[in-house]
Amino acid sequence: MFFGLREREARSKPEVPSGGKPRLKRKKKETTVNKASLKTAPIGVFDSGVGGLTVVREIVRQLPDENIVYFGDTARVPYGSKSKNTIIRFSEQIIRFLRTKQVKAIVIACNTASALALDAVRHEFDVPIMGVVIPGARAAVEATRRKKVGVVGTDATVRSGVYTRVIQGMNPQIEVTEKACPLFVPLVEEGFKEHVVTKEIIEHYLKSMRDGDIDAMILGCTHYPLIRSKIREYMGDGITIVNPAYETAMDLKILLEKRELANDRSGMHSHYEFYVSDAAEKFRCFANTVMPFDVPETNVVNIEEY
Amino acid sequence: MFFGLREREARSKPEVPSGGKPRLKRKKKETTVNKASLKTAPIGVFDSGVGGLTVVREIVRQLPDENIVYFGDTARVPYGSKSKNTIIRFSEQIIRFLRTKQVKAIVIACNTASALALDAVRHEFDVPIMGVVIPGARAAVEATRRKKVGVVGTDATVRSGVYTRVIQGMNPQIEVTEKACPLFVPLVEEGFKEHVVTKEIIEHYLKSMRDGDIDAMILGCTHYPLIRSKIREYMGDGITIVNPAYETAMDLKILLEKRELANDRSGMHSHYEFYVSDAAEKFRCFANTVMPFDVPETNVVNIEEY
Repeated sequence: MFFGLREREARSKPEVPSGGKPRLKRKKKETTVNKASLKTAPIGVFDSGVGGLTVVREIVRQLPDENIVYFGDTARVPYGSKSKNTIIRFSEQIIRFLRTKQVKAIVIACNTASALALDAVRHEFDVPIMGVVIPGARAAVEATRRKKVGVVGTDATVRSGVYTRVIQGMNPQIEVTEKACPLFVPLVEEGFKEHVVTKEIIEHYLKSMRDGDIDAMILGCTHYPLIRSKIREYMGDGITIVNPAYETAMDLKILLEKRELANDRSGMHSHYEFYVSDAAEKFRCFANTVMPFDVPETNVVNIEEY
Repeated sequence: MFFGLREREARSKPEVPSGGKPRLKRKKKETTVNKASLKTAPIGVFDSGVGGLTVVREIVRQLPDENIVYFGDTARVPYGSKSKNTIIRFSEQIIRFLRTKQVKAIVIACNTASALALDAVRHEFDVPIMGVVIPGARAAVEATRRKKVGVVGTDATVRSGVYTRVIQGMNPQIEVTEKACPLFVPLVEEGFKEHVVTKEIIEHYLKSMRDGDIDAMILGCTHYPLIRSKIREYMGDGITIVNPAYETAMDLKILLEKRELANDRSGMHSHYEFYVSDAAEKFRCFANTVMPFDVPETNVVNIEEY
């Protein structure tokens, strides 16, 4: 809708393979036009539901000139309790949908999908795809002094052990403690942020981590930044809370600059489109509490068809 | 697998239309054979996940001679926060899958799907389909002395207002109070049954209902019987707690007898098959805590293909 003109332009142009270079190179002029068109193409961002909006918020802050197409899989949320094969299948469908919007890069703004599906889909699609795990892990590696990092996330993310592998790949001396906190997502979704039970459930999950000796903790689920202040309050000042959303936005910036894909047409009004697989109005209301602007009309997509 | 022989038999026989009578009537003998085959056919039961097992448990208790095929939509659980169109689409896919198992009747063992999809799918498929709402409503109508009934359920069930409509259709003088309790499902699924927060969340949702003057309360979500004792403890002895699972099994018994579909080959060992759309082993472990027998191998079905 917002990208009508650009979509029509982009459809007749070659796509960017994972190497970031256009396929057709015969005519210099054509390549230049293509690159210019790609630069204004949107970033695709997806999540199992509303959590990924915390990543969109950071991208909007750090890369205000970029256009964004967001997809939230509200018909099949949550992902955190589901299997690897299912998460890969869901992610493939969403990426196929985002490709129809001529996105120039894709951010998996969901820790579970980043943990379970990123490796698989990266090899399958010829568009740059990044997740939130590596940026978050790097920030924690930089933040820890005692070489002890904690990670909180969904069941699926923690079971995958991806944060431990990535962190220890960066620095094998770092000790990583992971803890699944499956009730955090429904507490956020049901608006229990300020209720006393949220504090009790935080204590239930995080007591042993607080009593241990970590000095950095990754919020390894995009929903968790929405109760960040409660988690920070419980964990105390001695522990740096890492929200991978900020790091992800910064990594995206580097990726776009490296591949000459950053939108340099500054001054133009950026466009944001929101799609979900169900309950568009509920999503839009929630999104309006997270985003720094009025979220426009949200459209429902039958994602199983992709 | 278990029904191999019967499946092959049933495939060549006509199906039962919603009227309950076989389509082919030309030969009396053929009709008789068909009926005999139908009688041993399984009951199809489905739910968004594990909650429907509380209904299966009652069917096993009340109709021990019946074979059952269960489907839990664990890839897309929960249903309670999703829209009517989505729940109808999901239910249609599951019914199409259950039809491949030659079921003689289908029980929607999920309040949300009963509330949102039963009317639509009943007209679409030529197999008897029943839900849990009408049986539960009838039990509450019989139980209330003060003509004040409370209903707890998911967001979607409560928003649909179906319990109020059905109860007042049975007795317009009954006052119905409905309350959505969306955190009950994740609390059950995450094993918080015995945790102090469950008591606090029960109080959060049910305080006004306890302080009101209802004398019967329907557990309008198949997960809730799994915290029935905590709810009963909080609500006190003056309120009859209605679990539609028992009433549903009794209604199914009447339906099968009326349509001459009850399995009268008693003495044969009943078969139970379990299918899910994801995470079969996790489902099986949970099912083993609910069912009175060892749950056999559970198979994963790609339900989106139906």
